[in-house]
Amino acid sequence: MAWLTHQVVIVGAGFAGLNAAKRLRRAPVAITIIDRSNYHLFQPLLYQVATGGLSPADIASPIRYILRRQKNVRVILDTVTDVDVDHKNVTTTSGLIPYDTLIVATGATHHYFGHDEWESSAPGLKTLKDATGIRASILEAFEHAERSHSPDSLNFLVIGGGPTGAEMAGTIAEMARDTLRKDFRAIDPRSARVILVEAGPAVLPAFSSDLPNRAALQLAKLGVEVRTDWQATDISADSVTITDGTTSETVLAASIVWAAGVWGSPLGAQLVGREGLDRSGRVMVADDLTVPGHPEVFVLGDLAHAVSESRLVPGVAPAAIQAGRYAADAIVDRIEGRTPPVFKYRNKGTMATIGRRAGVAEIGKIRLHGWPAWMAWLVVHLWFLIGFENRLLVLTQWSWNYVTRNRSARLIVRYRD
Amino acid sequence: MAWLTHQVVIVGAGFAGLNAAKRLRRAPVAITIIDRSNYHLFQPLLYQVATGGLSPADIASPIRYILRRQKNVRVILDTVTDVDVDHKNVTTTSGLIPYDTLIVATGATHHYFGHDEWESSAPGLKTLKDATGIRASILEAFEHAERSHSPDSLNFLVIGGGPTGAEMAGTIAEMARDTLRKDFRAIDPRSARVILVEAGPAVLPAFSSDLPNRAALQLAKLGVEVRTDWQATDISADSVTITDGTTSETVLAASIVWAAGVWGSPLGAQLVGREGLDRSGRVMVADDLTVPGHPEVFVLGDLAHAVSESRLVPGVAPAAIQAGRYAADAIVDRIEGRTPPVFKYRNKGTMATIGRRAGVAEIGKIRLHGWPAWMAWLVVHLWFLIGFENRLLVLTQWSWNYVTRNRSARLIVRYRD
Repeated sequence: MAWLTHQVVIVGAGFAGLNAAKRLRRAPVAITIIDRSNYHLFQPLLYQVATGGLSPADIASPIRYILRRQKNVRVILDTVTDVDVDHKNVTTTSGLIPYDTLIVATGATHHYFGHDEWESSAPGLKTLKDATGIRASILEAFEHAERSHSPDSLNFLVIGGGPTGAEMAGTIAEMARDTLRKDFRAIDPRSARVILVEAGPAVLPAFSSDLPNRAALQLAKLGVEVRTDWQATDISADSVTITDGTTSETVLAASIVWAAGVWGSPLGAQLVGREGLDRSGRVMVADDLTVPGHPEVFVLGDLAHAVSESRLVPGVAPAAIQAGRYAADAIVDRIEGRTPPVFKYRNKGTMATIGRRAGVAEIGKIRLHGWPAWMAWLVVHLWFLIGFENRLLVLTQWSWNYVTRNRSARLIVRYRD
Repeated sequence: MAWLTHQVVIVGAGFAGLNAAKRLRRAPVAITIIDRSNYHLFQPLLYQVATGGLSPADIASPIRYILRRQKNVRVILDTVTDVDVDHKNVTTTSGLIPYDTLIVATGATHHYFGHDEWESSAPGLKTLKDATGIRASILEAFEHAERSHSPDSLNFLVIGGGPTGAEMAGTIAEMARDTLRKDFRAIDPRSARVILVEAGPAVLPAFSSDLPNRAALQLAKLGVEVRTDWQATDISADSVTITDGTTSETVLAASIVWAAGVWGSPLGAQLVGREGLDRSGRVMVADDLTVPGHPEVFVLGDLAHAVSESRLVPGVAPAAIQAGRYAADAIVDRIEGRTPPVFKYRNKGTMATIGRRAGVAEIGKIRLHGWPAWMAWLVVHLWFLIGFENRLLVLTQWSWNYVTRNRSARLIVRYRD
């Protein structure tokens, strides 16, 4: 009798939400997965869309299609505006949906440290809209320079030296030096400056040993100006002011990318109040990834501040996948009267690419840089894409881009909300 | 001395403009090609983007990239707002560009026969923005029905029974019956109605003999309701009123596609005035495709009303390609003191597909329908795409779609201007 079935409502079809749903495929539950987009987005490759190497559809797959064979799931395209933990229901724009167990996995958004006015000039990279917007802005900078015969202002600023910042800076430099080299007449795209600004002492600080230094060298080789220990103090539509504490400098910028800070999505604060969040707007969850006082409400993925073996679980795809699977198993445990174990994150390695043939990777005690790291990155990302119909397309596109040094998805188009 | 070189300005990088530029690659001219998009669009496959079978980047290629090796061309991303034939220059948003010879090839837009208010409800299919908008509207109709458990209003209306209308109606029917079949829980997508409204007595009226009948049968087999001799008399946001002259009927519509009328782009009227246009807003050109009184101004492609051997040259890609090459040769003839011949259009055949394995084709005296027509269509369209880097991608995507019956580019995203 369907109305007695345990109702699991999952908000957000990212890595955490989608993997929770898939893991519950044989569980005696009825799942409703709600997302405001009709597609699951493979965010680790979003920077490839932002730099014209891949098309949006290459890294986005219809949620319905992914789950079409799983009969205990229904997919709802809608926005969740409210959660009522007392009455156990969520409010969507088209009505209330009751739950027995709720999984909130709506991810994170950009954070400008109190300077929300910077967002319009320095967009972050979280959605397809962000990615196509940044792509248009980078390409338009070159178009404008060609039209006005003025290559002087071809400065690209990337704020934040984590994986996204390093990937963006490296790829923009490569576009200017390689992809676009022959495409213009009035300007030489190689004259473009790409500046990577990182407030801390190193890029890719999450990597250990000499890998941050290796990464900085690889970026420099591609022509990126790496400015560690510098931070942005002001951002306008066409310039960025940066300081290293003693001197400050204002740089004209044709395009600015924000990769410096993230903040948990608003549903987190709605759920636990401001006092239940950490300093990055993430929900402080218990060791079973549930909200204190509400064992039936899980918060997973980038929205969660979770601790495993005394260490903060990082906001990366593998951690979100593990959290999704853990929550699914915990739900089944509870239905069947068992107490779930605590969540344990297994770090299977981290990696970042820098341009076409370089990168850094750390897998257990193995540290790679340069070409081997790049190959490892490629294999892993294709492997993770394997659930997708279009991994074949990505492989084709990547091989093609690699051989021709082209990035053919260089369309100037912008999405609207 | 560059400033003495004959300056050719081409407005519009569609089939006509791009082929004129390419044909002039060894000519002693300096070419400026201006387009408001940074890509050339393969319009014959636009309906595939509108129905989620291909991604925008599959059928759009950066103009700069196509022409990167041709040193006598510069590409300008800009909008031409005015042409001054007396002073021989065009006005763009960033300044005047002088010409010795001008080629205007800005194509056509939709035409609502005096009912411009229909445009917002019943968009036409000419640009990537149109295609992604129509795709979003079709997919949202199914999402809405699933969310509200009401499949009743799943009616899709296509107005106009030419190739675009037949292709759209056939493919929407196929999506409902095949692609989306397993994707929903509350509704059965197969219950969708697809209605093709054609004011004349037959669909695909440009085809001869029994091909229009064959096409109607193939459409009916896919589940399309073909309404010939019916026409739309009123269109609102969610309904269409149609009449056959005696009775009239108002049909609720989840999504409406306009494929009934086109009108030359505004630059035509700007160039020759309203009196120089035909009844479809196209510029009446002389037998050498130039504007009367201005042998240095060519109008090509869908914007031109050209006559060859007493017959109107059709608004199709092969005709535009031929016109572009003709104009290029005519420019060289004149520079070298020869009088160009008149333009002659060679009809190499016409074809249209209807869904996944059907179509009609007419190549000289050969008439094909069903599977052979579909194969011919596929081969010809891949062949024409051969100039593109991404024909490999399209082939991969098509093969994949064919085998899996999927249309993976089913993202609900909308472009803004």
